[in-house]
Amino acid sequence: MSERTYAILGTGALGGFYGARLQKAGLEVHFLLKSDYPEVSQNGLVVESKDGDFTLPQVHAYSDVAKMPRCDVVVVALKTTQNHLLPQLLPPVIKENGVVLVLQNGLGVEEEVAQIISGVSVIGGLCFLCSNKVGPGYIRHLDYGHITLGEYDSNYHPTGTTDKMRQIAEDFNSANIPMELVEDLLLGRWKKLVWNIPYNGLSVILNATTDELMADIYTRKLVEQLMYEVADGAKSTGRIIPDSFIQTMLDYTVKMRPYRTSMKIDYDERRPLEVEAIFGNPLRKAQAAGVNLPQISCVYQQLKFLDARINFSPLAKENFQKM
Amino acid sequence: MSERTYAILGTGALGGFYGARLQKAGLEVHFLLKSDYPEVSQNGLVVESKDGDFTLPQVHAYSDVAKMPRCDVVVVALKTTQNHLLPQLLPPVIKENGVVLVLQNGLGVEEEVAQIISGVSVIGGLCFLCSNKVGPGYIRHLDYGHITLGEYDSNYHPTGTTDKMRQIAEDFNSANIPMELVEDLLLGRWKKLVWNIPYNGLSVILNATTDELMADIYTRKLVEQLMYEVADGAKSTGRIIPDSFIQTMLDYTVKMRPYRTSMKIDYDERRPLEVEAIFGNPLRKAQAAGVNLPQISCVYQQLKFLDARINFSPLAKENFQKM
Repeated sequence: MSERTYAILGTGALGGFYGARLQKAGLEVHFLLKSDYPEVSQNGLVVESKDGDFTLPQVHAYSDVAKMPRCDVVVVALKTTQNHLLPQLLPPVIKENGVVLVLQNGLGVEEEVAQIISGVSVIGGLCFLCSNKVGPGYIRHLDYGHITLGEYDSNYHPTGTTDKMRQIAEDFNSANIPMELVEDLLLGRWKKLVWNIPYNGLSVILNATTDELMADIYTRKLVEQLMYEVADGAKSTGRIIPDSFIQTMLDYTVKMRPYRTSMKIDYDERRPLEVEAIFGNPLRKAQAAGVNLPQISCVYQQLKFLDARINFSPLAKENFQKM
Repeated sequence: MSERTYAILGTGALGGFYGARLQKAGLEVHFLLKSDYPEVSQNGLVVESKDGDFTLPQVHAYSDVAKMPRCDVVVVALKTTQNHLLPQLLPPVIKENGVVLVLQNGLGVEEEVAQIISGVSVIGGLCFLCSNKVGPGYIRHLDYGHITLGEYDSNYHPTGTTDKMRQIAEDFNSANIPMELVEDLLLGRWKKLVWNIPYNGLSVILNATTDELMADIYTRKLVEQLMYEVADGAKSTGRIIPDSFIQTMLDYTVKMRPYRTSMKIDYDERRPLEVEAIFGNPLRKAQAAGVNLPQISCVYQQLKFLDARINFSPLAKENFQKM
């Protein structure tokens, strides 16, 4: 049994799911919560899952990071729209030589984390997970769950597979979470953006599911063009995404069940959209390399407009009350 | 008094307004109608206007083009989404050496008309008109009304100002419709697209009025980028739109009252959108010259998706029942 202790920052659909699975596998896990703290500190976590339902009647729950013990691995499972909180949240809870494991979408978060805190390893994980939080401390896991893992080095210099990566993979594998180790985190992140940029963006702007976007010849073409622009962005940072990967993503999405993307769910529930992590940061990386991505830029500007409108409208939930 | 006779194909907010004004000024005008035929043939046309309300209790109304007399000037005032009807509508109603006056948005319609019928002059008019049809034969004129006029020659070769243009301007001026004559119709059409492409497109896609688009820094920037792409398109066909014109359009729109674009009104009322005339044709013209307009293309593909969705949904009105 691993002696490594875990802190989960953001006990929602993603952090709650992975943290609960780790605790169920016997690891020591500490959960930071906000609105769900009263419920979870009393009654623990419930996970309804296609892999088997389970309940953790008792968990280490916290509403204040200052009360948490320092942990070996700190899992950043917030939405990226909450990342302005990281300078307060991370330093008190991470052990020296610990690992910050960033389980978020988009690009550039590892860089931010590395600037906040030194003397730790920063590892990025790309989660392929369909899960929802259906109530306080109540998570419904619908499908998938595997994670692609890569370690961050300054300027996203490829690290190969490292011991820290292998240790974390061991822990997650013991919890039946498959982990794939990649030698180049940045390439992994760009590859995930090949899917996330067209489908997250267009699903929000056009109020559409993935199958609707693929059934129309015009949006199907636009999806493909956006994917090629992501590949241009990757190339501007020295990473090559082959055409065959793009074709595979298109075929894969056509075969998927109709899917409402995570950004569409955020939009429908009037939560802030992860526009900067998924669109803004990749655009800026490409731009810094002198490469313009006009169609991604068009979608980005449209999303910024929609994001501002849902957040500044009177109907918007008080999002900072929520993790 | 002019001896020229006019046929109005499409007696809606635009055709009904201009036709009524011409008849009121003493010209002989013949109106083609579809759904409004019973009402208008009985009770004529009503125009409520900031320039003064008036009623024409009796007008020459037709539901069938074959019953119309041949006219000197045939005004095409259909929505461009109905232009597939032109090969049936135009030939029976135009006199030899007559004029087809195309009062439509977008690009390329004059070319189509010239292919349908030879031995006539084709003149394009760009209408700056705010009017609505509020009931059968009942038109509300809100603002503006002036028209920019240019004659078509093959491949949009500039014609200078011609006698036919001057004659039509005389007739419209007698009806208090100001007409500006331009020497280069294609340049005029591109200039109008500088406004129509960003505002019509984004107002539909983002469900926004012009003032909302200009108040947000991201969409304001996107509007400007789209305008510069229109200028790139114009340049690909040899027409130069100066930067100062773009800045004037931006300033002008900021100062305008909040405005719901014509395409947004069509969308809200579930009518087919004029996507091909306003977006598709300019894109194809630029592409034929080897110039790619990626952001206009992005907006075009999004609009095609939305247009198909409103037209193929069960709620869509039977648009072909309407003029």
